[in-house]
Amino acid sequence: MYSSPMSQKPLRRVVVTGGTHGNEMSGVYLVQHWLQDPRELQRPSFSAMPVLANPEAVATCCRYIDYDLNRAFTSTILNSKATPDDPYEVRRARELNQLVGPKSSDQAFDFLLDLHNTTANMGACLILESSYSIFTLHLCHYLKLQNPDLSCCVFQYLFSRKESLGLDSVAKNGLTLELGPQPQGVLRADIYSQMRALVISAMDFIELFNQGTAFPAFDMEIYKTLDRVNFPLTEDGALAGTIHPQLQDQDLEPLKPGAPIFKLFNGEDVLYEGDSTVFPLFINEAAYYEKHLAFMKSEKITISVPALSALTSASTLAL
Amino acid sequence: MYSSPMSQKPLRRVVVTGGTHGNEMSGVYLVQHWLQDPRELQRPSFSAMPVLANPEAVATCCRYIDYDLNRAFTSTILNSKATPDDPYEVRRARELNQLVGPKSSDQAFDFLLDLHNTTANMGACLILESSYSIFTLHLCHYLKLQNPDLSCCVFQYLFSRKESLGLDSVAKNGLTLELGPQPQGVLRADIYSQMRALVISAMDFIELFNQGTAFPAFDMEIYKTLDRVNFPLTEDGALAGTIHPQLQDQDLEPLKPGAPIFKLFNGEDVLYEGDSTVFPLFINEAAYYEKHLAFMKSEKITISVPALSALTSASTLAL
Repeated sequence: MYSSPMSQKPLRRVVVTGGTHGNEMSGVYLVQHWLQDPRELQRPSFSAMPVLANPEAVATCCRYIDYDLNRAFTSTILNSKATPDDPYEVRRARELNQLVGPKSSDQAFDFLLDLHNTTANMGACLILESSYSIFTLHLCHYLKLQNPDLSCCVFQYLFSRKESLGLDSVAKNGLTLELGPQPQGVLRADIYSQMRALVISAMDFIELFNQGTAFPAFDMEIYKTLDRVNFPLTEDGALAGTIHPQLQDQDLEPLKPGAPIFKLFNGEDVLYEGDSTVFPLFINEAAYYEKHLAFMKSEKITISVPALSALTSASTLAL
Repeated sequence: MYSSPMSQKPLRRVVVTGGTHGNEMSGVYLVQHWLQDPRELQRPSFSAMPVLANPEAVATCCRYIDYDLNRAFTSTILNSKATPDDPYEVRRARELNQLVGPKSSDQAFDFLLDLHNTTANMGACLILESSYSIFTLHLCHYLKLQNPDLSCCVFQYLFSRKESLGLDSVAKNGLTLELGPQPQGVLRADIYSQMRALVISAMDFIELFNQGTAFPAFDMEIYKTLDRVNFPLTEDGALAGTIHPQLQDQDLEPLKPGAPIFKLFNGEDVLYEGDSTVFPLFINEAAYYEKHLAFMKSEKITISVPALSALTSASTLAL
């Protein structure tokens, strides 16, 4: 299960990225703040580097210019020869791969924390890539314990393809923070504060680990991707209805077979036809309309995470 | 006060516009629905024409392509000679002026209802232009009475300039429906239903008037624009903070002198320094970031609206 084993060394090279999608404002403004005043990212054993991931998209307050940057970190894109016609985000992905990677290499940064917002009512969601380490699971557990008022949920995003596409896959380990609901292009003080607190907690956890702290085993509920549910469409490919009002804002609440999921414009309800209770998320996310994705389904499972042993004194002394 | 007197004739030519801003989805989808199935806009005495106002912006799900269409209906723009370099919305404004105007002419449509969404927590807001008629005030009153669960508020938008810029100024009379909160690019079932109900009520009111119904005098609370409040900025022109969490979502609630309005990124609060209680609206509207507009201030006043007399039988018979 833990396909990305953590080497028993302190994390010296940590990066915090925001503005991977240029209209998700919490990360944009937090990174811009830390570029001016990086003290919150500094600890005795390391200093995390803030990076504005997609500055062109930030400048025009859109998700991306030519291509979704958070789907651009494939080996095909990163390793192909540059041409003058490459989309902006393809060029930017290669730049970021040079800066904090190269992906899957020994030179890659130790940890990458990528900051996102959603229009869905998902609260504070911690998103793991398909492959993740025991270290990252302990980080999630620590974030939950240190921020009990946020009711953080942990979501494992399983790709249909083998390769991870996201920015957080470039470093040796990574985690995505996905906070909502927040409209695109809007900066809410409450969401901003929550994200800031989570990043500060993450820095604290890395510092504790680097200083030789051991972390005991624990059990944790996580949500695992099942599949996606698309909007109903007309013959012309246009939306035939909306998310049902009984499903709207019910992210991570149980969705039972027979419950309404869409309200068609002709007044009819569409019911959920699955044969088991699932947990929807990214319900009515603005960015997914272009893919006709209405929401994602997940299952809730409990995993047992083994202890994270303390670094040896030889490692910590090397700090 | 009622600078746009209503002629005592039935309203035969009525238009309902959506997608004036291409990422405000309730109007976009309602108009697209009515273009397929116009029955809800048909009454015995008239049929309202649905118009998708900014199809290019709708196609790319953005507010506008080159220029805010809802600021383009000035006499300068509408009457100047077309050139090949004209921005898309300047060309579109002239097309719409030909379709439902010309503005300020006898040929203009009798009534225009323009459908908008906001990311602010404004509920169902009915926006009057600076100049409005007794007819339009009676329509607002009727919409409030027929939809008591929506707690509609009436807002008079006073421009700093003499001329109205908006699409609703092209017809002889007009009203803008502004419903929120809804993120840009998202279609919520609840807001969609509310807007649909309001448009149906508006059609009903016009039909009642056309059929010779008289409407008695009444008193009504309305909000009148005072001025705008901009975000605090750094020396570089960037945001220096957010809407204060105590102000966020408090549209149309009283804002008292000394109450916090901004939370700076350095942690400081900025207080409201006015000398009287005001009523903020459009708090943290995504579209206004480009103007650095944080919210608008209004005052709440009560107006006495005279009776709307019945059309003479000669007029109604002409139907």
